Amino acid sequence: MNKIKANNYFVEFKQEGFDSLKKLIIDNNYSSIFIIADSNTKKHCLPVLIKKFSKSIKPELISIPPGEENKTINSCQKIWKTLSDKGGDRKSLILNLGGGVITDMGGFIASTFKRGIDFVNIPTTLLSMVDASIGGKTGVDLGAIKNQIGVISNPKLVIIDTEFLKTLSEREFKSGYSEMLKHGLIYDTVYWNNISNILNNGDLSTFIHKSIEIKNNIVLKDPYENRLRKVLNFGHTIGHAIESYFIEADHLIKLTHGEAIAIGMIVEASISVSKCSLKQSEANEIKSIFNSIFSKIKISDQDQENIISLMKFDKKNSHGNINFVLLNSIGEASIDNVVSVDQIKNGFDFYNS
Amino acid sequence: MNKIKANNYFVEFKQEGFDSLKKLIIDNNYSSIFIIADSNTKKHCLPVLIKKFSKSIKPELISIPPGEENKTINSCQKIWKTLSDKGGDRKSLILNLGGGVITDMGGFIASTFKRGIDFVNIPTTLLSMVDASIGGKTGVDLGAIKNQIGVISNPKLVIIDTEFLKTLSEREFKSGYSEMLKHGLIYDTVYWNNISNILNNGDLSTFIHKSIEIKNNIVLKDPYENRLRKVLNFGHTIGHAIESYFIEADHLIKLTHGEAIAIGMIVEASISVSKCSLKQSEANEIKSIFNSIFSKIKISDQDQENIISLMKFDKKNSHGNINFVLLNSIGEASIDNVVSVDQIKNGFDFYNS
Repeated sequence: MNKIKANNYFVEFKQEGFDSLKKLIIDNNYSSIFIIADSNTKKHCLPVLIKKFSKSIKPELISIPPGEENKTINSCQKIWKTLSDKGGDRKSLILNLGGGVITDMGGFIASTFKRGIDFVNIPTTLLSMVDASIGGKTGVDLGAIKNQIGVISNPKLVIIDTEFLKTLSEREFKSGYSEMLKHGLIYDTVYWNNISNILNNGDLSTFIHKSIEIKNNIVLKDPYENRLRKVLNFGHTIGHAIESYFIEADHLIKLTHGEAIAIGMIVEASISVSKCSLKQSEANEIKSIFNSIFSKIKISDQDQENIISLMKFDKKNSHGNINFVLLNSIGEASIDNVVSVDQIKNGFDFYNS
Repeated sequence: MNKIKANNYFVEFKQEGFDSLKKLIIDNNYSSIFIIADSNTKKHCLPVLIKKFSKSIKPELISIPPGEENKTINSCQKIWKTLSDKGGDRKSLILNLGGGVITDMGGFIASTFKRGIDFVNIPTTLLSMVDASIGGKTGVDLGAIKNQIGVISNPKLVIIDTEFLKTLSEREFKSGYSEMLKHGLIYDTVYWNNISNILNNGDLSTFIHKSIEIKNNIVLKDPYENRLRKVLNFGHTIGHAIESYFIEADHLIKLTHGEAIAIGMIVEASISVSKCSLKQSEANEIKSIFNSIFSKIKISDQDQENIISLMKFDKKNSHGNINFVLLNSIGEASIDNVVSVDQIKNGFDFYNS
């Protein structure tokens, strides 16, 4: 599978990726190598990775508890301290082995330790393969607000190996699938049609490759999200707020990122019908596809109020306005749409109906 | 006084600087403006700054306790939270009004808040005018280790106004003077000769301008400190360790940055005689100048052991070696010198003698 040229690094697949990692380590003569993993990837994915190393390379493992609730500055402080105590220096390398929490946070830790050291992303979930590990966004949450603290900083290499997906639960798998569907909705009608019915369809490698290509094309054109890159936030203005709210609210179950943005995409598709040129039939199609994948969640009026109040903290918003990415059609997004609270509530009604 | 072109911003002087700030604010239509200050600069410098604003601009003040001991991730967390609570967004501007602690930490806070917002440095100490606010290094300490966490990120503008120096204590003033002397030692013999005897000599503006020019010339040639920029660390390998150690050790008084690096420069000058081509007479001259400015501090054998053990955490070191910037002569530095513990101890003997 062809490697993909990103900003100043490559996304490489399977054994070729690990061969490039070996070369990177030899060429740079790193003083030490650290692997950041969570207890899940330590158990399921680390043995796969270790097999790829020659015995002369002895990486040091830093393991943290899994979950978005650990994507915090406090976790960073612990890991910075461990790096420091174990002699990490400017010529150390960090390998981030895990899902989006690990690649986002590990990238931030590497980019700020001694003002920046090299890191490599080895995503182990479908979500981090097609989204988090590509594009240079790193960061952690601040309280309930996702990715509030971070920097744009690129890895030296991203390695994609679907071998890691074998231990993924169905729920986690669907979480990544949701982002892949988004790539079709915002950028590629043909891809949407091809991918919207592939669940349980065997090897996803070519679809993963295509999703990374779409995201990478967008990021290359606008790495700092001044304009075009915003399209990747389709479903996320509402989706992020839903995700944060469901984490904080004791009476609600936690949602995966994909579950939250799926709801966000349905709500925002409905808003797209009234604010942009998306057809009602297209909004219905989007709702129908996501509802065939994810169970319906009841979002009460009170929940909606709380979710809307969280949105004003979204990084994409400024001057007190809430900006949305909407759809002109399936395959074409529209940025910088200012949406009223009533329009958002109507969107939730469409989701709930 | 001519403005100085830095990487992608200008260092501007006095009223011209404030005029450029006004223009920056108008051109960018910032959603909100925050001033980060400490309780000292809030009292002495904020009134000076506020007078420069038109009444239509209403910056929000975020004040923290003064001192290096507050240059921590915990302080950052409080300020990030305040920014967030007060509606700071991607189009907010941060003005850092203070010494090196404020410009270093405020720059880091701005560069990581929502993955980076604009900031302006308004240094109020001689030290931050000639050093911290120029060159893009931002960061905070991690435990006893200075500037362990940070990023390289440039302000939109740096404003130098010697008006702020009027409230500076003599001790703080000398702290900056120490860095100015360093600029002569590493880069410019003539400047060293001119500046080494100017204390209490009236307006320092032209010397400050020259020091900024020297630092800026070095940073422009090597912003990421791969080679040349390392020369700015002369005196700092030992000086940083001394500074950290004196903060942590209960039985010792705290030193200013300038006091610590002055000792570092004397010790490293002595090492330069044995490892490089610095003449003994030059090392004696360096020692004599610094001793005419700063009181002698006794550094015991036990203190030396503790200081040396801290050095291995210095960001400049990798692969377990301690690298030093030394001098070939006054005005010419030499980078990447590996120095033994015995040579360091001999340097301390020269300082103590």
